[in-house]
Amino acid sequence: MKAEIIGIGTEILLGQIVNTNSAYLSGKLAEIGIDCYNHATVGDNHLRLYSAITQALNRSDIVITTGGLGPTLDDITLEVISKVAQKPLILKKEIIRLISGHFKERRMQMAKNNLRQGYIPKGAAWLKNDIGTAPGIVIKIGKKLLIALPGPPREMQPMVEKDLLPYLKKSTVKKSVILSRTLKTTGLAESQLHEKIKQILNLSGNTTVGIYAHPSQVDLKITAKAKDIKKAKRRICYIEKKIRKDLGKLIFAVDTETLEGKVADLLGKKTIAIAESCTGGLVSDRLTDIAGISRNLLLAVIAYSNKAKIEMLGIPEKKLKTHGAVSMQVAKAMAKNIRVLAGSDIGVAITGIAGPTGATKKKPVGLVYIALSTSTQIISKKRYFTGNRKAIKFCSSQAVLDMLRYHLIK
Amino acid sequence: MKAEIIGIGTEILLGQIVNTNSAYLSGKLAEIGIDCYNHATVGDNHLRLYSAITQALNRSDIVITTGGLGPTLDDITLEVISKVAQKPLILKKEIIRLISGHFKERRMQMAKNNLRQGYIPKGAAWLKNDIGTAPGIVIKIGKKLLIALPGPPREMQPMVEKDLLPYLKKSTVKKSVILSRTLKTTGLAESQLHEKIKQILNLSGNTTVGIYAHPSQVDLKITAKAKDIKKAKRRICYIEKKIRKDLGKLIFAVDTETLEGKVADLLGKKTIAIAESCTGGLVSDRLTDIAGISRNLLLAVIAYSNKAKIEMLGIPEKKLKTHGAVSMQVAKAMAKNIRVLAGSDIGVAITGIAGPTGATKKKPVGLVYIALSTSTQIISKKRYFTGNRKAIKFCSSQAVLDMLRYHLIK
Repeated sequence: MKAEIIGIGTEILLGQIVNTNSAYLSGKLAEIGIDCYNHATVGDNHLRLYSAITQALNRSDIVITTGGLGPTLDDITLEVISKVAQKPLILKKEIIRLISGHFKERRMQMAKNNLRQGYIPKGAAWLKNDIGTAPGIVIKIGKKLLIALPGPPREMQPMVEKDLLPYLKKSTVKKSVILSRTLKTTGLAESQLHEKIKQILNLSGNTTVGIYAHPSQVDLKITAKAKDIKKAKRRICYIEKKIRKDLGKLIFAVDTETLEGKVADLLGKKTIAIAESCTGGLVSDRLTDIAGISRNLLLAVIAYSNKAKIEMLGIPEKKLKTHGAVSMQVAKAMAKNIRVLAGSDIGVAITGIAGPTGATKKKPVGLVYIALSTSTQIISKKRYFTGNRKAIKFCSSQAVLDMLRYHLIK
Repeated sequence: MKAEIIGIGTEILLGQIVNTNSAYLSGKLAEIGIDCYNHATVGDNHLRLYSAITQALNRSDIVITTGGLGPTLDDITLEVISKVAQKPLILKKEIIRLISGHFKERRMQMAKNNLRQGYIPKGAAWLKNDIGTAPGIVIKIGKKLLIALPGPPREMQPMVEKDLLPYLKKSTVKKSVILSRTLKTTGLAESQLHEKIKQILNLSGNTTVGIYAHPSQVDLKITAKAKDIKKAKRRICYIEKKIRKDLGKLIFAVDTETLEGKVADLLGKKTIAIAESCTGGLVSDRLTDIAGISRNLLLAVIAYSNKAKIEMLGIPEKKLKTHGAVSMQVAKAMAKNIRVLAGSDIGVAITGIAGPTGATKKKPVGLVYIALSTSTQIISKKRYFTGNRKAIKFCSSQAVLDMLRYHLIK
């Protein structure tokens, strides 16, 4: 069973809005075992929409369009579908009743052009729109299924979840479901990770592993196709074990989990304080995205200036002069002093050059020192990051959170 | 001159990532007068990619693909283009030199599979990738132009802006241009803003105004189509003046400008210190995204706990007990004390309940107090925000930055 999704709307082709509908629908279809091999987007143009729909019907079993069901004259989806299906548009009084009810509820006058939305191709079924006025349309053309949904996600999504998916689940024959699981890593580049698990990445067939690089993070996505969810889960579990054997602690989280969430979990009852320089508050901001972190995070100081480093964090002026603010020595002193200042179990610190200015011959943009201090030990690392200011800030925050994670799982 | 954009990647068809590249490219092409009538997306599959590219070349003058240029075996774009163009893939030593330089800069070992990225179709030109390793490719096929760009937006976008757009501007003939300008506002809801400029939103024809709501921000986008850039600019300027007459200082920035960038500009030589509680470092993080802010930002303290509020910011324990940490009185004291502590011209403070826990009967989740202190005045505001923890943090940061902006433009 193959599906194809067509986004309709000139505003998408002008780049004024991003088409999120195709990704949403693809994800939902995959969950119930329907493959999607093509997405297309066309404008509000008869000829091009006609050609996109007929091409899609030729190569796929299910074609879903989104958009072009509104009340105005540039909404042409149903006219075109009427031509493709060779069925005239006929008035459905029940739809008109629903639309006028929609306006009455909102104490508004129904505009005359909303009447257009009551006309659907003869023989088509329709899906109620709980949010807006345009109904969805389902029509069989030969053995193929053509479905037209409204464009606004807040109207389209409830329609899909309430009516379309249950209908497709019942009426289509699926041989399989598709399930995915994402393992997230940081600390290695895509190509280095690739080398480590080459064998597994070369899998083909019903279970595959994809590799996706993000700034300072590389994800491995295991995707399994199987007869039912239980079998798919078993396949994913088998591959995950293999990958974990090779990568171990490099994997910091799974699926929607985040690095900051993982660190918050691992902190348990331990308290922490943060001294940031080049990250400017980002580490603290990421950690405080996690509910309940007020239990752990006692204090963060963003000591951007040397004065603040001296007065707030008690870094000896001599140390700043001898080694520079961006140095292993200062990072260590910041981590220790913030810990003592806050009276926390752990202190972490970051100092570096986020750029674009501030570099010297020996200290390039992207040079970052991170440090972690407890009452019994102090560790520190030197790292080089690239990219713009924001990227260097993010990579630095990723590095310090990951340092914290390694410390906590020990 | 017609263009078409093809997104490549099975993860898009599985709904695992949203394809934002097509919208970005369409917008950029529209700005230089190149129309885009079709978008397509296909997976990492030889046959379907071949067919998508040949179809696109048949109906459009310029075809741009994004994705599938990585170092791994599932990256097949150049192999397919080599078949479409009937040109063999040949090794470019200069590309390999750049890639190995990329790894050297990062003190990393180049993986063997990165060598694949040095092979491009014979006769093709290539675009340097300043961020990653995959170069972009430009190849002429008959009278048509086929362009392959990397998939990650952070690699693709600089390539487009630095090299591709200037090249296309020079080498193509255009009949009209489409130009847009976005005016950004904060502080009013979409419907309130709508009421204020109803007349202008009803424009139709060659110049239109769209309204786009984001969290704590509503944008107005003026779009003009004209024979040349000069005429389009004149039309936009005329409408912008009308809107500015109605909205005045509500407009905080234009196009790619940000609120934090605007505040940094307005600060000039003034110094600032920040005391954050519920925003957890986000205000400081946003401000430090702006290069050169080290001149202004002396210190930020994230005093998440009462202990930190007392010890670091010198808030009297009695005040915390009488009014609670989330109160106008504490916000004002935080703003004043951080200013004095840092010796800065301005002090700002935020205290509130980001949720999901921490609410009381009188103080719901989303209640936030912000304050601003100088040597001669102190101002404060009470605000209610809705949404999840992250949304409340963001809206709070937006409110305090906008308070700062209003103070600085006075």
